Amino acid sequence: MKITSLQNSKIKDLVKLKDKNKRDKAKRFLIEGYREITKAILVDVEIETLFICEELFLKDNENSLIEKIKSKNVEVFETTQDVFKKVSYRDRPDGLIALAKQFEIKLDDVEKILSKKNPLILIMEKIEKPGNLGSILRSADASGIDLVIVTDPVTDIFNPNVIRSSIGAIFTKPVFVTENEKVFELLKKHNISIIATTPHTDKIYFEIDYKKPTAILVGAEQYGLSDFWIQKADDLIKIPMMGIADSLNVAAAATLVLYEALRQRKFI
Amino acid sequence: MKITSLQNSKIKDLVKLKDKNKRDKAKRFLIEGYREITKAILVDVEIETLFICEELFLKDNENSLIEKIKSKNVEVFETTQDVFKKVSYRDRPDGLIALAKQFEIKLDDVEKILSKKNPLILIMEKIEKPGNLGSILRSADASGIDLVIVTDPVTDIFNPNVIRSSIGAIFTKPVFVTENEKVFELLKKHNISIIATTPHTDKIYFEIDYKKPTAILVGAEQYGLSDFWIQKADDLIKIPMMGIADSLNVAAAATLVLYEALRQRKFI
Repeated sequence: MKITSLQNSKIKDLVKLKDKNKRDKAKRFLIEGYREITKAILVDVEIETLFICEELFLKDNENSLIEKIKSKNVEVFETTQDVFKKVSYRDRPDGLIALAKQFEIKLDDVEKILSKKNPLILIMEKIEKPGNLGSILRSADASGIDLVIVTDPVTDIFNPNVIRSSIGAIFTKPVFVTENEKVFELLKKHNISIIATTPHTDKIYFEIDYKKPTAILVGAEQYGLSDFWIQKADDLIKIPMMGIADSLNVAAAATLVLYEALRQRKFI
Repeated sequence: MKITSLQNSKIKDLVKLKDKNKRDKAKRFLIEGYREITKAILVDVEIETLFICEELFLKDNENSLIEKIKSKNVEVFETTQDVFKKVSYRDRPDGLIALAKQFEIKLDDVEKILSKKNPLILIMEKIEKPGNLGSILRSADASGIDLVIVTDPVTDIFNPNVIRSSIGAIFTKPVFVTENEKVFELLKKHNISIIATTPHTDKIYFEIDYKKPTAILVGAEQYGLSDFWIQKADDLIKIPMMGIADSLNVAAAATLVLYEALRQRKFI
């Protein structure tokens, strides 16, 4: 049965999930797109319903994906283009949206990662833009970080643009969402060195040692890390700025430090 | 005299500039925001008119900026909040929008840069997202690149989101917009080594020498660099990928290579 009306209750429920508060309350979120849904299935994100619109398919092997999802007893509904475009948050939707359950990593599992040998952690404090949050997750995945911590969040990790710009890394990387005090307590407990990025230091990011247990911290787009972290950091590092601007985009800055850590750990 | 109506002809002209074709035809563009307008003035971008809305000011020293602009015989118009928000392309406008003349670097000046000692050039081919284009410009400024070339463009450099995400670097860095064949001819003429980023190589970006005259190339978000460049490159380099994704965000990737070049040239 094809859904043709925006008044359909399932569609109304989906549209509501564009709103953070309603996402939180329902403990659900949307995964849009072939690439993202494929990654979500890979790590057993719990998909409850799949909405499809065949006319929008990019002919990217959608049918095998749909069969895989159906084999997990997930209901699949077809919609008209009009209805689909209303639910989609993309300019060019590819005809696939999944409704899934929110998930979170258990504190026990966080501690397991922190107690392994030489863990490398990335901590994001108060990142505002979903695109930056997602892009940093993508770089964290690519650089082989062990754990991502999102602290004092202002943007929720189930924001559709986070999921999109992370290209699914939100599903495959462990992401722990919590508060600064808790993070600090955990880092101290596990003897993890705190490396804070800030313009207010002379030390350049490639001048320190990342081979020991390390947490790399990046802060909000406009104001950077809070005093809480600047004061508690074991090392402050900066990105050299040779032009007229006083900072890089936060995702670019995070990527530089993550890859310097990777270079030291794997390649020299 | 305060502009109170959306039917005002100046306002209608401004709104039209949100459209690329109309921007091209008018050879004008919009600069929104205190930070961006400040940088534009710094390098004498030709501002024709300034629109302000005092109620939206962040009290960031706007008056001294306005005085500076007025001293260049630029007309200043005040608008109501409603009108301003209609013209603005931001969620939280700060009450300042300038109408400016488009500009371009002369071929002579491009050649001057290419013939200096050991120039370092960044070339972006077919970047689609304005946010990425701007963010790469920001990183190019920060890493001290000599020249940015935008080749076979699909997004124009006067797109409001390019200007915004470049944080004004679009004004302070020389940016040359042209086609692949022309770029190749110039690079050959000036003996500049062509370094192309691609997943299809074993060489890692920090394994090559950036101290000679070098052009670093990055390609479109989805498909990367065209065969044109892959075949003409002197060296292919890749970013190591340790996770499930097969690529980084293009702005993150460009930043890594730019800063490796900076590290080699200035710090080792």
